[in-house]
Amino acid sequence: MFQYRRKVQYHETDKMGITHHSNYIKWMEEARIAFLESIHLPFQLVEERGIASPVVAVSVDYKNPVTFGDEVLVEVFITKYTGVKLEVGYTMKNAENGMLVAVASSKHAFLKEGRIVSLKRVAADLHSIMEREAQAAAAL
Amino acid sequence: MFQYRRKVQYHETDKMGITHHSNYIKWMEEARIAFLESIHLPFQLVEERGIASPVVAVSVDYKNPVTFGDEVLVEVFITKYTGVKLEVGYTMKNAENGMLVAVASSKHAFLKEGRIVSLKRVAADLHSIMEREAQAAAAL
Amino acid sequence: MFQYRRKVQYHETDKMGITHHSNYIKWMEEARIAFLESIHLPFQLVEERGIASPVVAVSVDYKNPVTFGDEVLVEVFITKYTGVKLEVGYTMKNAENGMLVAVASSKHAFLKEGRIVSLKRVAADLHSIMEREAQAAAAL
Amino acid sequence: MFQYRRKVQYHETDKMGITHHSNYIKWMEEARIAFLESIHLPFQLVEERGIASPVVAVSVDYKNPVTFGDEVLVEVFITKYTGVKLEVGYTMKNAENGMLVAVASSKHAFLKEGRIVSLKRVAADLHSIMEREAQAAAAL
Repeated sequence: MFQYRRKVQYHETDKMGITHHSNYIKWMEEARIAFLESIHLPFQLVEERGIASPVVAVSVDYKNPVTFGDEVLVEVFITKYTGVKLEVGYTMKNAENGMLVAVASSKHAFLKEGRIVSLKRVAADLHSIMEREAQAAAAL
Repeated sequence: MFQYRRKVQYHETDKMGITHHSNYIKWMEEARIAFLESIHLPFQLVEERGIASPVVAVSVDYKNPVTFGDEVLVEVFITKYTGVKLEVGYTMKNAENGMLVAVASSKHAFLKEGRIVSLKRVAADLHSIMEREAQAAAAL
Repeated sequence: MFQYRRKVQYHETDKMGITHHSNYIKWMEEARIAFLESIHLPFQLVEERGIASPVVAVSVDYKNPVTFGDEVLVEVFITKYTGVKLEVGYTMKNAENGMLVAVASSKHAFLKEGRIVSLKRVAADLHSIMEREAQAAAAL
Repeated sequence: MFQYRRKVQYHETDKMGITHHSNYIKWMEEARIAFLESIHLPFQLVEERGIASPVVAVSVDYKNPVTFGDEVLVEVFITKYTGVKLEVGYTMKNAENGMLVAVASSKHAFLKEGRIVSLKRVAADLHSIMEREAQAAAAL
């Protein structure tokens, strides 16, 4: 499964001494983009076709805090893909001790010229890659 | 119902031209803190008692984008309070036209000396305020 | 002199317990935009004319820290304006006790279709406002 | 010379389509921390000794923009070190084409129990490392 490794930065901590919870949303984006690159579907390619892929929902369950000095491993996997909707799952672990840091998900749509479209219809080649990856994830 | 008014800042936009979705988590925190202040339960008071209140979960459904130049009204309300768990709901609207921007929620615990505690037991006065507010929200 | 009032947010603190120093750059932007609005030169108007105004330099001297619970007053004033270059100064004070928080400056250019332009040439009306304001600041 | 490599993240862009200028301050911190680690003076070690090292000034000259999809190489070097004051220089280049992205600097003090101290006096071993590195940088 694809893993994105990320050091917790000093500027990501807050006065509680731990990572501010808003940063996990950024890590999810970074991990998702790295994942798409790993399956030869870089986000730049999507944008070059005039397709935007806005985030329509996010959800995070924070399990154990991490802070400056820690490294996080973010596992990324497609949990649902219909051509119109994409759902991505994330499992974050402390790289040193394997402790669960967070479990998260995000939902995405595809937009062309401001309208919701089916990736299958507007970019069949990108759709095929996504579908294959979704099936691979489902088979795990 | 308590409302927190917030201008979308230029530094909160992304290359899609809209507010980056991670900022909504920050707006929720700002609105929650302003709400607690409005019910005479400022977060500083909680921290002065040696009580931390970490975010244990967040969830956001993005409905309509906002961008630089827009103002957002964030309605904040307690959706659940047990003394041990606090759940807060948020409805974000575009201040100009009333369009729904996002619906969100957050879950919180109370920690003292690193252990989960009941606010009722460690700070009965703060608990009373929270309970009264939760009942008021439920009555709406 | 124009003043921008800003609460320090919890998400702006770091594990040292104070505002992370990167946030001052965001406050400068917020204060600058509010200042431009106050002189009837809203940044949206500039962008609508196809003019971008990138930041070409920033500089901050941090004097006394502020943290969650504090409010900052940011004084904004034009220190130089030539039609091609704009320089803005900032004095940040703790709203409660008047203590100096930071002294800062930013430099800006004007771009149209990706090329550096004179605001005087591409938007004479906006140039007049800026020039008048620069003279008023110089007279102080 | 020490180099820190950093991808520009989507969440770091703004509606102008380029990296928001506030993020450079964060990159400087990340690069500085990685640099200190590379000279066996990890920032955690400094903090464990009860020594804080606040940023007292920053300055950035933005030369050429970068955006999502770009990678930045940040060269970090000590420009001045007196035991009491530390000044760090940064040269940022586009990793792909070598174009200059920004030239920057930061100034730092050392605090123990809230008072400015000489690193030489409170942590002679850390001081030696810093001094050796400053001399090496000066010799270039």
